[in-house]
Amino acid sequence: MGKDKLSYQLKTPKGTKDWEGIDMVIRDQIFNTITSVFKRHGAVTIDTPVFELRQILSGKYGEDSKLIYDLADQGGELCSLRYDLTVPFARWLAMNPSIQSIKRYHIAKVYRRDQPAMTKGRMREFYQCDFDVAGAYDRMVPDAEIIRIVCEVFGKGGLVLDGIFEVCGVPKEKIRTISSAVDKLDKLPWEEVKKEMVEEKGLSEEVADKIWEFVQMRGARDILDTLRQDPRVTSNESLISGLQDMDLLFTYLEAFDVLPHVEFNLSLARGLDYYTGVIYEVVTEGSAPPSTTSTKKPPSTNHNHNPKPPRKEKSAPEFDEDRSNDPSVGVGSIAAGGRYDELVGMFSGKAQIPCVGISFGVDRIFSITKSRLNTTTSTLRPTEVDVYVMAFGGKGFTGLLKERMQVAKTLWDAGIKAEFSYKEKPKLGAQFKKAEESGIPFAVILGEEEVGRGEVRVKEMGLEEGHGEKDGVVVKMEGLVGEVRGRLERKRREREGGDGDGEGEVVDSMRELKVEDRERKTGDDGV
Amino acid sequence: MGKDKLSYQLKTPKGTKDWEGIDMVIRDQIFNTITSVFKRHGAVTIDTPVFELRQILSGKYGEDSKLIYDLADQGGELCSLRYDLTVPFARWLAMNPSIQSIKRYHIAKVYRRDQPAMTKGRMREFYQCDFDVAGAYDRMVPDAEIIRIVCEVFGKGGLVLDGIFEVCGVPKEKIRTISSAVDKLDKLPWEEVKKEMVEEKGLSEEVADKIWEFVQMRGARDILDTLRQDPRVTSNESLISGLQDMDLLFTYLEAFDVLPHVEFNLSLARGLDYYTGVIYEVVTEGSAPPSTTSTKKPPSTNHNHNPKPPRKEKSAPEFDEDRSNDPSVGVGSIAAGGRYDELVGMFSGKAQIPCVGISFGVDRIFSITKSRLNTTTSTLRPTEVDVYVMAFGGKGFTGLLKERMQVAKTLWDAGIKAEFSYKEKPKLGAQFKKAEESGIPFAVILGEEEVGRGEVRVKEMGLEEGHGEKDGVVVKMEGLVGEVRGRLERKRREREGGDGDGEGEVVDSMRELKVEDRERKTGDDGV
Repeated sequence: MGKDKLSYQLKTPKGTKDWEGIDMVIRDQIFNTITSVFKRHGAVTIDTPVFELRQILSGKYGEDSKLIYDLADQGGELCSLRYDLTVPFARWLAMNPSIQSIKRYHIAKVYRRDQPAMTKGRMREFYQCDFDVAGAYDRMVPDAEIIRIVCEVFGKGGLVLDGIFEVCGVPKEKIRTISSAVDKLDKLPWEEVKKEMVEEKGLSEEVADKIWEFVQMRGARDILDTLRQDPRVTSNESLISGLQDMDLLFTYLEAFDVLPHVEFNLSLARGLDYYTGVIYEVVTEGSAPPSTTSTKKPPSTNHNHNPKPPRKEKSAPEFDEDRSNDPSVGVGSIAAGGRYDELVGMFSGKAQIPCVGISFGVDRIFSITKSRLNTTTSTLRPTEVDVYVMAFGGKGFTGLLKERMQVAKTLWDAGIKAEFSYKEKPKLGAQFKKAEESGIPFAVILGEEEVGRGEVRVKEMGLEEGHGEKDGVVVKMEGLVGEVRGRLERKRREREGGDGDGEGEVVDSMRELKVEDRERKTGDDGV
Repeated sequence: MGKDKLSYQLKTPKGTKDWEGIDMVIRDQIFNTITSVFKRHGAVTIDTPVFELRQILSGKYGEDSKLIYDLADQGGELCSLRYDLTVPFARWLAMNPSIQSIKRYHIAKVYRRDQPAMTKGRMREFYQCDFDVAGAYDRMVPDAEIIRIVCEVFGKGGLVLDGIFEVCGVPKEKIRTISSAVDKLDKLPWEEVKKEMVEEKGLSEEVADKIWEFVQMRGARDILDTLRQDPRVTSNESLISGLQDMDLLFTYLEAFDVLPHVEFNLSLARGLDYYTGVIYEVVTEGSAPPSTTSTKKPPSTNHNHNPKPPRKEKSAPEFDEDRSNDPSVGVGSIAAGGRYDELVGMFSGKAQIPCVGISFGVDRIFSITKSRLNTTTSTLRPTEVDVYVMAFGGKGFTGLLKERMQVAKTLWDAGIKAEFSYKEKPKLGAQFKKAEESGIPFAVILGEEEVGRGEVRVKEMGLEEGHGEKDGVVVKMEGLVGEVRGRLERKRREREGGDGDGEGEVVDSMRELKVEDRERKTGDDGV
């Protein structure tokens, strides 16, 4: 391939990729599965521009703001590519004050100038699937529905619910800075982190100790019971209210029949500025890196709502370099979200609309799903074509192109998916090969004699020698559509009866997600 | 709404918009219709990044290159937002030399710093739906299938096929410059255009006169017959070959049963650098501006593959200003495409892969479709929710929130789309209002007594006073799913029997597209 003409490398920009072939089929099925869950819960969708005015994004992402892609100043407004779908949603709510409540989903690409790890689904351009509920409602009701949605998407997969930090008694104005200290437990012993909290950040030693107690807890209702017996908790009104919220949430999760899938976890890492309440993330076996030091802390690899900025360290690879082969990098959480009650108010001035939402990281779900698909038994195919229209003939064979076109037209008119060779005189072998490679189930074969009698042959592909119908059946042109329809219907029923149907395969693999062992190995996400 | 906190205007960037509500429902149905046609013809889809290396786009769009959005230089590679889906497709083909043929579709947003006219669907961020066939095939075969696809998308809508310019005898190296001269026939009399062709551009007077003859022609086979009798044509080998191609194309279009919808038109405006053969565009009533001078020339408002750059003139409005109310602006063509046999080679060096494709301008199709929908009789609704789960009670009413959640869970488990109020103690009137406003067909009503007996009430919404089932029927909880499913199924069948079904409405409006009168009024697209 003569690249001599090109003065540049033929590639996609770093951290981006082309999607093609079976990957697109799998990804589409993941989208469809997620969308159908969102619709089942009454969500509408909105679509915002891929870039926003730069001021809209500024001040929303803390340190991660440096990962925002800016558009060049070519005159006119200054714009940046969206970093997530949450801030555009809040901007939209603030712009539409007549809308005081909405359940919306949005499936679209977002952009982060982060260090990529392509094969693990960490990219600079990646899809998010967001579901959010905006509106002033009774406590914990939409929050519970969002957790139910996560469980519907992942089936029996598990969910880690990061705890309510306020329960520990951290003053509101210190939550962010203390949160970033807790986050260092990945790397530092507790003693050092505590020192930072108390000496540098002015937290009382008592609260710091409580944090240490809490970050080691895992469980559900039992955690609540422990906390309730703690006099430090029961003597503090705001903590009691936090406990009541958790209790309410567990009651609702029980009604939704998803409580067994949820783990409550008080060690949380809150990266973005806009969260105000409960936050959660979904982790799975592949979320953590394959091998690093074991700690008590789950992987806080919340790339969706809560990504970590790349940290340059001595031994760190180049920022642009792909980290797919770096054993310290896991896939991260596959969904994450939380409550952000004050974000809309950042745009609208006084008007607040409380919001809670979840973001599914599709590229990561894709990576895990694909690695689980059994490629040797997979029946996934790139197209949905039902029929390949082909022709054959002896000496002086004309190719019957016009006739093949007419047959294809008849099938298309009936809504049947059909293809034919674009060659005037295609070889029979090449036509069969094409149909086989594409996994097309039926051939309609035109022979010169049969065409003269107004007949064509319908043949099921892939039948073994000796099968009674190996050579197909001859039907009148008028009966072709009925014959093909009947056979497709039978094939569909066969497939649904068995377990080899393409859609089931992807959804099954998606739903094999398991929360890894509680004592799972984790590692730092930031390097 | 206190905007006092904001130092900037709360809006989307110029030329972009948010999509929401019923508009999203209509647009999704347009996408689904187009996608199902693409799949019926065996297309696969690929997804390329929203930005490309800047070098990939450079030298591909001629003068329109200045409309490309660049990303800011923040270190690393220089990138630009894609301007269309064709160049990324060619780049992908060049990067994947093992793929020598493919039918692909791609539905995605593209970006042009053009002067917007929002309500007419002319935006800076807009969707394209592209279908392309790559591969070395026998002449005119994929070309004909693409025209068939256009006819399937638009039903009985019409198609204008812009002619093969070479037939006129214009030397290959002069086609672009002569093309831009022909394009001026919008504004200038023939005499002046001819002067430019002959005196400035060195075309022979004979060829120029032939162009004038040809640009006035409209028709199909009859044009071929006229040309065949023209000794100037029959004495030129390359023209004869062009005629043969047209003849072949018409034969194939006949086999596909779409010839009556196609008009052949020899006045063409070729804006992009990459076209090499036949080009076509689909125009409709709204394509032309509502009132301007009448000319023989169809509106060459090919925003898809062939957009016009904004021209600054004396009286021209500001570049950034919206032109929706400018009477000289029409919607433009709603689909356009053509053959580009040499684009892949621009990337791969020697290797050429001939390509032909079509791009549907969804935002324009949307504008026209929406304006045709009868909003008073429309049954379109924003969500697909089947059931609203509600509760009522007298004094001391608890709200039955947990019970409503359990009923919703039961319905979700059965795949039924259901919602309920997020209030602990919602008012019955408010619940009914919500269900009615959303057009939800069924209510499941929980009363305290009935719940105690393990029963709920199923009620069809919107039944008149006096209807036997106005108050619904009471069923056991175990029978709820069966009851709701049966009713939904009946409703679905009713709808399909009638003509008020949502999907049909949009598709019907989409397919009412008509090619406007041949003598239609047109206007310049560039101002």
